[in-house]
Amino acid sequence: MEKETNIYGIRAILEAIEADKSIDKLFIQRGLQGTLIKSLETVSRKKGINTVYVPVEKLDRLTPHNHQGAVAMISPIEFANFEELVNKVIETKETPLFLLLDSLSDVRNFGAIIRTASCTGVDGIIIPKKGAAPVTADTIKTSAGAAFNVPIAKVDHLKDAVYYLQGSGVTVIAATEKADGLIYDKDLKQPLAIIMGSEDVGIAPALLKLADLQAKLPMEGSIASLNVSVACSVFLYEALRQRIS
Amino acid sequence: MEKETNIYGIRAILEAIEADKSIDKLFIQRGLQGTLIKSLETVSRKKGINTVYVPVEKLDRLTPHNHQGAVAMISPIEFANFEELVNKVIETKETPLFLLLDSLSDVRNFGAIIRTASCTGVDGIIIPKKGAAPVTADTIKTSAGAAFNVPIAKVDHLKDAVYYLQGSGVTVIAATEKADGLIYDKDLKQPLAIIMGSEDVGIAPALLKLADLQAKLPMEGSIASLNVSVACSVFLYEALRQRIS
Repeated sequence: MEKETNIYGIRAILEAIEADKSIDKLFIQRGLQGTLIKSLETVSRKKGINTVYVPVEKLDRLTPHNHQGAVAMISPIEFANFEELVNKVIETKETPLFLLLDSLSDVRNFGAIIRTASCTGVDGIIIPKKGAAPVTADTIKTSAGAAFNVPIAKVDHLKDAVYYLQGSGVTVIAATEKADGLIYDKDLKQPLAIIMGSEDVGIAPALLKLADLQAKLPMEGSIASLNVSVACSVFLYEALRQRIS
Repeated sequence: MEKETNIYGIRAILEAIEADKSIDKLFIQRGLQGTLIKSLETVSRKKGINTVYVPVEKLDRLTPHNHQGAVAMISPIEFANFEELVNKVIETKETPLFLLLDSLSDVRNFGAIIRTASCTGVDGIIIPKKGAAPVTADTIKTSAGAAFNVPIAKVDHLKDAVYYLQGSGVTVIAATEKADGLIYDKDLKQPLAIIMGSEDVGIAPALLKLADLQAKLPMEGSIASLNVSVACSVFLYEALRQRIS
């Protein structure tokens, strides 16, 4: 299993970006000036890299080396290109199954979901570039290594991903407890993308209203709330159940 | 949410046992002699309390107080009496659903399972007295508080619990990847107890062969292994799906 790697120094990061390394997050020192940092900002904006501005102390904690005001977290996995992934899957598979994760924040939940996704034949996981749990060494461990097998694509906006999937003939179903109908009454045998929401607020309303279908799980007892990786797993297994029966 | 509590001192522990406090584990100093410690050993054996003999340093780490060679971990929840629980559920419910956990070792998995058990209407969880993940503050947190709602019973031997359930008209089904048939082809609408195995070795062979049925989940991909709390959740939801459909 690979470990997370940080690279530091503006030139080194610029080279990593040029070499198309998967950068999970770019940390730039707040208030930093200069030509080199400006080029880094321009390039990272063009590539849509998740960039945050932080105090120098944060950078010092990320690396003991001379970072010159910039540290990049390299992802231990290679991300897939969203449109290429969708096109390829749709060409080769009659009933694709995609999973969209809206701002899941816990790396263990993310890892657990990737693991189940692998076991249920998910063709690709789509996450937003910003605000999503990163693929860290913990994610990979919790995924039991499945993070190396299930294609994961990052997109600027999940809304655009939904439009693209719908335009490609994929039905988008939102997993939400606000739904009227149960998952068991929905046809999950068609080309499908399931949207799961974040642990705290669920699916963003703007995304929710784009979905073709909404569905929930039955819920007994007084707690009436499932862990998101459990809920996601039950949804994925219901899709698999319908497809093999 | 209550926190774990340790009580220390032989007399205090004897009193706690007499007051029927739920003692999760009793630590006694190795090689300790005396009348009082002998009574504690006798009483704890009679009550079937999980007792371990440890070096004095272990006890010193458990409490900063004068422990006199004995520390007891009090469970934050009250455990149910197994036979009373089964009898009560069977009297009041047509199709009970029980869950037997064979030596699950991870408190977070345990908590996640309790949470899903609450959401799927499980009538009781049965665990062995020895070798099972304890109900700690972490278990309760992961269960989202469900540990206070779902009755949990401890038994000396899960085999005896299986005999008792079968004698009470409950069908016992083992969740094992060694099964021939899929869970979807089994009738889960009858009075049912599901056995889940531990994270590493699954269900003990001696227990597995007592089960009336065996079933597995379909499995795609190269990882082909689910987290035990995910697998358990999918089993429980399949039981719920069949029961409400």
